[in-house]
Amino acid sequence: MFQKVLVANRGEIAVRIIRTLRELGIASVAIYSEADVESLHVQLADEAVCVGGAAAQASYLNRQNILSAAILTGADAIHPGFGFLAENADFAEMCAACQITFIGPQPATIELMGNKANAREFMRQANIPVIPGSDGFIADVAAAKAVAAKIGYPFLLKAAAGGGGKGIRKVTCAADVAPQFMAAQQEAELSFGDQRMYIEKVMTAAKHIEVQVFRDQQGHVVTFPERDCSAQRHHQKVLEESPCVLLTPSKREQLLALARKATTAMAYLNTGTLEFLMDQQQNFYFMEMNTRIQVEHPVTEMVTGIDLIREQILVASGATLSFRQRDIQIRGHAIECRLNAEDPLQDFLPAAGTIDYLYWPLGGLGIRIDSGVYAGSTVPPFYDSMIAKLITFAPERTQTIAKMSRLLQELVIRGITTNQQFSAALLTDLSYLAGTLTTNEISQRFLPQWLAQQKLGDEQHAAV
Amino acid sequence: MFQKVLVANRGEIAVRIIRTLRELGIASVAIYSEADVESLHVQLADEAVCVGGAAAQASYLNRQNILSAAILTGADAIHPGFGFLAENADFAEMCAACQITFIGPQPATIELMGNKANAREFMRQANIPVIPGSDGFIADVAAAKAVAAKIGYPFLLKAAAGGGGKGIRKVTCAADVAPQFMAAQQEAELSFGDQRMYIEKVMTAAKHIEVQVFRDQQGHVVTFPERDCSAQRHHQKVLEESPCVLLTPSKREQLLALARKATTAMAYLNTGTLEFLMDQQQNFYFMEMNTRIQVEHPVTEMVTGIDLIREQILVASGATLSFRQRDIQIRGHAIECRLNAEDPLQDFLPAAGTIDYLYWPLGGLGIRIDSGVYAGSTVPPFYDSMIAKLITFAPERTQTIAKMSRLLQELVIRGITTNQQFSAALLTDLSYLAGTLTTNEISQRFLPQWLAQQKLGDEQHAAV
Repeated sequence: MFQKVLVANRGEIAVRIIRTLRELGIASVAIYSEADVESLHVQLADEAVCVGGAAAQASYLNRQNILSAAILTGADAIHPGFGFLAENADFAEMCAACQITFIGPQPATIELMGNKANAREFMRQANIPVIPGSDGFIADVAAAKAVAAKIGYPFLLKAAAGGGGKGIRKVTCAADVAPQFMAAQQEAELSFGDQRMYIEKVMTAAKHIEVQVFRDQQGHVVTFPERDCSAQRHHQKVLEESPCVLLTPSKREQLLALARKATTAMAYLNTGTLEFLMDQQQNFYFMEMNTRIQVEHPVTEMVTGIDLIREQILVASGATLSFRQRDIQIRGHAIECRLNAEDPLQDFLPAAGTIDYLYWPLGGLGIRIDSGVYAGSTVPPFYDSMIAKLITFAPERTQTIAKMSRLLQELVIRGITTNQQFSAALLTDLSYLAGTLTTNEISQRFLPQWLAQQKLGDEQHAAV
Repeated sequence: MFQKVLVANRGEIAVRIIRTLRELGIASVAIYSEADVESLHVQLADEAVCVGGAAAQASYLNRQNILSAAILTGADAIHPGFGFLAENADFAEMCAACQITFIGPQPATIELMGNKANAREFMRQANIPVIPGSDGFIADVAAAKAVAAKIGYPFLLKAAAGGGGKGIRKVTCAADVAPQFMAAQQEAELSFGDQRMYIEKVMTAAKHIEVQVFRDQQGHVVTFPERDCSAQRHHQKVLEESPCVLLTPSKREQLLALARKATTAMAYLNTGTLEFLMDQQQNFYFMEMNTRIQVEHPVTEMVTGIDLIREQILVASGATLSFRQRDIQIRGHAIECRLNAEDPLQDFLPAAGTIDYLYWPLGGLGIRIDSGVYAGSTVPPFYDSMIAKLITFAPERTQTIAKMSRLLQELVIRGITTNQQFSAALLTDLSYLAGTLTTNEISQRFLPQWLAQQKLGDEQHAAV
């Protein structure tokens, strides 16, 4: 077992990992940027090392400094969390070269799944259905038009190196191909330093369904009940839940069998998530794989009672999985709401600042709040805007939603703007309540309606 | 179903009930004393009524004012929580007379079990083993001596109307009988307005094991896995857990069968707890029954996934239990730590004051914090000193203890003195870790040791 682990991340996920290390009796090393000196993860870790300036590139993405910190503090392993270096195959290689365990899959797997076009191709060969689109990369505008002739408009141009909704452009007609191709390529180059593109058909009225998988070094594979992450705005997840209420047990079996086949085919190591689109006929199409722990992992933990971060650490140290497929039961329904420091009225512009007052409505059965902030802490403008995850769990979905509504009603956070009211409103949406919300519905229907209501409210208020 | 429920309590249990009402779509009415104007339960309820002055007698025990508040606000039901009027049969009768549902058992049951001597007698006749002692009440010193001649010394003199550790005196020899009888009687008169006494043999090296039971109006009975509440100081519970690690499944079956028999024998309604002593040979002896929800109910909720407060409300409204015995599974191990505003260095003297700063180490799987306080709130000197319940849950007991230790390490509470460090130390006690701690062990061994260590620490500190 590891004696000391460096956590190469910040915010709530760093806090989450540090706490699990403490519970395992493993010493923790936090890293931090100059902007994060007072951060909760720094205060909670056994040791903390400043690895650079405020910009992520200078600190949380600074591979040399992070590795130096690990070597100097004598860490046996590095947990990358999500984002930053979590899916950086080179960094995983560098760790290995320094005899430090990278808590995640092998570098080759990260590389393979990191390139979304190659991942599609791998799945296709493993007989996992993929979304209709290009075979491999699209070299230029002419190649894009050739694919369009086969699959039709609209389609999505996607950065092969993509993730987090970046480098994606929708193309609705032939005239759009050239300008959108340039725009997407430019964004891809800027975001990932890799301008390779591929094409996927636009699946209208589809749901985003994903499967968490785990595989240990001894070859045991376990798949977890699916998560429904269809509640997205501009490709950013807003609410996630497990299980998906639309799936029958046999449909679930079918989906989990696909995930198991893919996991086995790549001899995957540790945990990861296979993301699928589900059409109205409940056909599943592989979209991409995230070779790391995900933001929304708590809903799976609540539903199954299994601590995924703990298991990541144990499996990375060589232990066999502490559970088998038969131990995975659906114990109820869980929902996660991402609390972001952002202004929904200004196109979700990130809103940095200092938290003057904070009341977390903790307490009661099935309430979980994972957060990296505290009363008095500062939310810097340099990183992801997520400051907490509110998670509720109950035997039935309606009870779980009622709990989340209550949480959002009671939560008090002053000093920064958040998406609290926006998310509370979304919980009352009829399509959300029915469980039928599709991936484009928030952007296309709910958000415009909500913005109009807010404007109307403001005008009425002004008239009084 | 009820439209509106008045919560006749304060602090964390009032908050807990109000939140459950909100999740059920039922309006809530808080009551409060003049000392509790700014309390969390007042802020969270849909309505709030001041029912009297700071002293409990003037407000939370003021039956007329509370009933008036219920009538004036149009409440259909009253949830009494625990303490205050929760086991007051007269109050339950008064509610019935006003056509307001008292969320709890029938007044006759409260009456029967409220008198501990009568409760013993009832159980004896129902073939439930009771602790050797007097048959019914002890009229005077001579009667006490006669019982002593049969069961031997030491024995406990206990107030029949007792509860919460009050009106109890240990008698070690014949010369002690007269003075202790007077002292106990006086305290009983003062605490309960009832000086009737009974006798129980002192069971040395025993464990406090209790069973939560539920019975609906349709006659369905469900018993829950036992709680081990042996970690007590001066008859006050400090740490509670479920299940008891010492019990084999067949012993558990045997205990739960006793609880089921007792519940059925009295045609009990709603939820309650049967408290037993378990000797070294794992024989169970009925001690008393609490005809209300208990402080430590969260550990049972965590272990089984069942919301007991929600079920109390539903069953009181006439619904059948939403679960059956076969649905009750032991999903893991849970521990509760009571966080009290008190000073363990001054014989646990209650410590009122204002909470200047508060950091709850919330987050992660299996963490629950039920509390009635917030940063800036005042802990008045008039009521129970408990300000929060820290609850942890994990598949294995060792993990659950590790989580609790981490919580107590991370918790920051400034402005008032608490038992945080005392409880953290108790979690490292070898007897506690083994699960063998008996009911007298903290007072007789752990506390004196701990106090000596604290003194030594102070002296070393002074010497530096």
